[in-house]
Amino acid sequence: MESDDLIAGHLQELRRGTVVLACLMRLRTPDYGYALLESLDRLGISVDANTLYPLLRRLEKQGLLVSEWNTAEARPRKFYRTSPAGDDLAVTLTADWDRLTGSIHRLLEGDTP
Amino acid sequence: MESDDLIAGHLQELRRGTVVLACLMRLRTPDYGYALLESLDRLGISVDANTLYPLLRRLEKQGLLVSEWNTAEARPRKFYRTSPAGDDLAVTLTADWDRLTGSIHRLLEGDTP
Repeated sequence: MESDDLIAGHLQELRRGTVVLACLMRLRTPDYGYALLESLDRLGISVDANTLYPLLRRLEKQGLLVSEWNTAEARPRKFYRTSPAGDDLAVTLTADWDRLTGSIHRLLEGDTP
Repeated sequence: MESDDLIAGHLQELRRGTVVLACLMRLRTPDYGYALLESLDRLGISVDANTLYPLLRRLEKQGLLVSEWNTAEARPRKFYRTSPAGDDLAVTLTADWDRLTGSIHRLLEGDTP
């Protein structure tokens, strides 16, 4: 059990950084929090609502997302979309991710630089 | 400047989880802390000594690394190597990494599940 917790902790640490990148890429198509959550879940990037909603507010505060209330439907919903600055960051993070993937695969092949 | 800090923060978050994986894979060949640091740096996984050394001690405490003092040379050095449990975790984390890479590339291609 303790060992399961240990593995879960390391997996969570590995995934944490990808949630920001996934949000920035996914919200190039505007959407509201819960739809984003379900969408990320279908992609295999599971994130808790209690983690995602504060993250969306933080990314908005940082100017990486912008939001708008959609009041056309019965229940008003806050839609988020990626800002131009958020787009730029997504490009930077993706390049970094791909570089890290290259490094990890070099290690996997037993390369010891 | 604030924007640079913001980008650096997000990049750091993305990289953090990879350091554990990189250590576990790299230390299948035993080595001491400073050599590991230089080796990760050459791989493009930069990590501060003040971050790496406590991490190595933490991974040892978790049973993912084992250590041994090498006293054959003039200056004794603590060598770390990946334990069988650490090997297992590296396999799990690598599979997760590859799955996340797949998800990110689906998003990159504009797939909105």
